[in-house]
Amino acid sequence: MSVLVIGSIALDDVETPFGKVDGALGGAASYFALAASLYTNVNLVGVVGTDFPQGYLDLLGQRRVDLKGLQLRPGKTFRWAARYDFPLDIAQTLDTQLNVFADFHPILPEDYRGSDFVFLANIDPVLQLEVLRQIKGARLTVMDTMNFWIERKRADLTTVIEAVDIVLMNEAEVRQYSGAYNVIAAARYILRLGPKAVIIKKGEHGCALFGDSVYFVAPAYPVEQVLDPTGAGDSFAGGLLGYLSTQQEITPEAIKRAVIHGSIVASYTVEDFGVRRLASLNQQQIAKRYDEIRQITYFAQI
Amino acid sequence: MSVLVIGSIALDDVETPFGKVDGALGGAASYFALAASLYTNVNLVGVVGTDFPQGYLDLLGQRRVDLKGLQLRPGKTFRWAARYDFPLDIAQTLDTQLNVFADFHPILPEDYRGSDFVFLANIDPVLQLEVLRQIKGARLTVMDTMNFWIERKRADLTTVIEAVDIVLMNEAEVRQYSGAYNVIAAARYILRLGPKAVIIKKGEHGCALFGDSVYFVAPAYPVEQVLDPTGAGDSFAGGLLGYLSTQQEITPEAIKRAVIHGSIVASYTVEDFGVRRLASLNQQQIAKRYDEIRQITYFAQI
Repeated sequence: MSVLVIGSIALDDVETPFGKVDGALGGAASYFALAASLYTNVNLVGVVGTDFPQGYLDLLGQRRVDLKGLQLRPGKTFRWAARYDFPLDIAQTLDTQLNVFADFHPILPEDYRGSDFVFLANIDPVLQLEVLRQIKGARLTVMDTMNFWIERKRADLTTVIEAVDIVLMNEAEVRQYSGAYNVIAAARYILRLGPKAVIIKKGEHGCALFGDSVYFVAPAYPVEQVLDPTGAGDSFAGGLLGYLSTQQEITPEAIKRAVIHGSIVASYTVEDFGVRRLASLNQQQIAKRYDEIRQITYFAQI
Repeated sequence: MSVLVIGSIALDDVETPFGKVDGALGGAASYFALAASLYTNVNLVGVVGTDFPQGYLDLLGQRRVDLKGLQLRPGKTFRWAARYDFPLDIAQTLDTQLNVFADFHPILPEDYRGSDFVFLANIDPVLQLEVLRQIKGARLTVMDTMNFWIERKRADLTTVIEAVDIVLMNEAEVRQYSGAYNVIAAARYILRLGPKAVIIKKGEHGCALFGDSVYFVAPAYPVEQVLDPTGAGDSFAGGLLGYLSTQQEITPEAIKRAVIHGSIVASYTVEDFGVRRLASLNQQQIAKRYDEIRQITYFAQI
């Protein structure tokens, strides 16, 4: 089973109250790929410039991430600078340089087109559609987005939502897109467009899974010291699809377990800057927190 | 097993985007008493003025709430006017008239002093201490508070915290009191002062229970239409203590189940204005949501 991801690969300059990194490996696709590769092989589709450090390519390559779909273009890699203040849930973007990402168009190598699991990370919905058109017979397609596309490319975004199996959004995004304040009503709005499920990410408050026949609430793993929240959502998606790729069938029960895996991978990611913690994560550490979350959510019958 | 509550009894003028009530039965002790009386007898300690409607006394009396400790004083009842806008989580207080509540001092009838369960609702910590001094041999004492007392009567509040078994606070309060942004660190700060447990209320995000040997996260029941959030926290406390009063032993597992009961009672309260929904609630309706919450939080082993 292979997982394909299309999304940004970036060099990040990030500052939080706990420290600072410059030129760190970042971008949605990087976090997703490192997370999903804990479970399976990952096909990475994106673009980097000639300034992209070989060390980052090595890190991805060592972790079952196939780089055949990674375009190397003359120019600089997409660069993002941001700062988080308390509360750490919102990044204040200080600078965005699209660079080689500005005129990126995804071209899938032939053997990527039959990928079983596809994650359309947060990018222009027009590019997400380009990828969907190149994909054949995927078992599961999942998308993420952000307020920028909701505001500026709503029609294209809606076409993507109508075409995928699972939509990931955070609370603010699902409210903005649906126009409904209540998240249950907002989730129903998305489900009516076609997806089998919506997962609403709520940061430290965990997440909720809505489907036609399933409703599930998962707490975030209680992280005592969040150093850098960057990449939490994409790590979540990576854990989610990575876990599902190991399952015989994509049942509602399997998706619930996958949501817990996603939460756990994200909980590790935020414990250090950038991909540091994610890069050293292993399945034993995931299993440990899985048992812990089962314990902290369990209560007996009435 | 009897439950005693000391707190405000008020006439509320509340406006939300969904409607408006004037002179409605309100106050922390009213919500708590109606909630806890779904499980057991409740001894209510508070004060009302001569304008307090007989109908409200009748409602309380019909619901196993003993009114012997309710003082009737010349003058007007405590009156609170507030408005909620989206998001509905914060009340904007428009007017507060303490009236007979201004020089209230709780005097416990002799047969209240041996109450098994005691809830010190959100009032001046000096009054909470006066009640604690009159109580003998309680099985469980629980307190609530608010930012006003954290700011103005911190020393007295700390004395109460040191003396009780369980502290209830919302996220903002526990952060403010402890000076720790992370709620886990904040909960530890409270536990070091003596309480056996801290329950942090997070509104639509549910709540978390922290104790020396227990950590538990409960989602809020997914309410599709919140009409009026007033009284949610006190209804929660009423469900919590009401349920615990039916238990042989106050074990960590019993407290977890009690937290779910509290969440459920609160979820019903907010579905209508004031105490309307709470007044017609019954144990069958509670049991129904209890099973639903078990379902929406359950996931299988890894």
